[in-house]
Amino acid sequence: GIKMDNFEPKLAWSDLKVNADGLVPVIAQDYQTGEVLMLAYMNEEAFNTTIRIGKMTYYSRSRQELWIKGLTSGHTQYVKSLTADCDYDTILAKVSQVGGIACHTGAPSCFFNEIIKKEYTERNPLKVFESVYQVI
Amino acid sequence: GIKMDNFEPKLAWSDLKVNADGLVPVIAQDYQTGEVLMLAYMNEEAFNTTIRIGKMTYYSRSRQELWIKGLTSGHTQYVKSLTADCDYDTILAKVSQVGGIACHTGAPSCFFNEIIKKEYTERNPLKVFESVYQVI
Repeated sequence: GIKMDNFEPKLAWSDLKVNADGLVPVIAQDYQTGEVLMLAYMNEEAFNTTIRIGKMTYYSRSRQELWIKGLTSGHTQYVKSLTADCDYDTILAKVSQVGGIACHTGAPSCFFNEIIKKEYTERNPLKVFESVYQVI
Repeated sequence: GIKMDNFEPKLAWSDLKVNADGLVPVIAQDYQTGEVLMLAYMNEEAFNTTIRIGKMTYYSRSRQELWIKGLTSGHTQYVKSLTADCDYDTILAKVSQVGGIACHTGAPSCFFNEIIKKEYTERNPLKVFESVYQVI
């Protein structure tokens, strides 16, 4: 048979629970490194557009309009998976981040303002793996 | 000198922007595997309690009360770091998840309801590393 990507979603927008603003928060995570890139929001149009075009599409609360991520910046996020949580009010999106830059500031991730940090041994698996790989 | 953990936060609650409900969404992520565990919310009391006791403390929207995660289930989340995003309206918490179970359903992560998934080669770094490590 012909191999096709199947974009038919297992859940529809109506299966999700919206917040007080009628939106659903979406966590975007790099599908390879596991780095959390940003939190943004979807309305129904953003959700359906994301599934149709395979690129993360949010609802911009500041501009109050549909926001196809990367349309102006080039920093498109290609969808690898969308998963709802146990109570269907949050989406986790695993994405391929074009350019490795998710944040409008030019940072790889939007999370860079430290609040607290306990010291711990770096065990980021990718970094450990890369070190080991070079030895091998 | 005496080595101490420094829990003095670099940002205070007043530096953050709350949503329409007066809360800030918090993404909890396993600090070792990078797995996104859950999304929950903090109010000022939850934020300050988290920093004071070093255990993730949320505001339960359903019960409308402070929720020290793990207090009844035992599935405490020890704080490794808290980081605000570029516009200070979301927190990323890296945590050590006791028992490896974050979800009230008993699942490791709350994100298990598949919406869509494109096929891609597994490159979860921890899994790759563990395979390589066994060979070494």
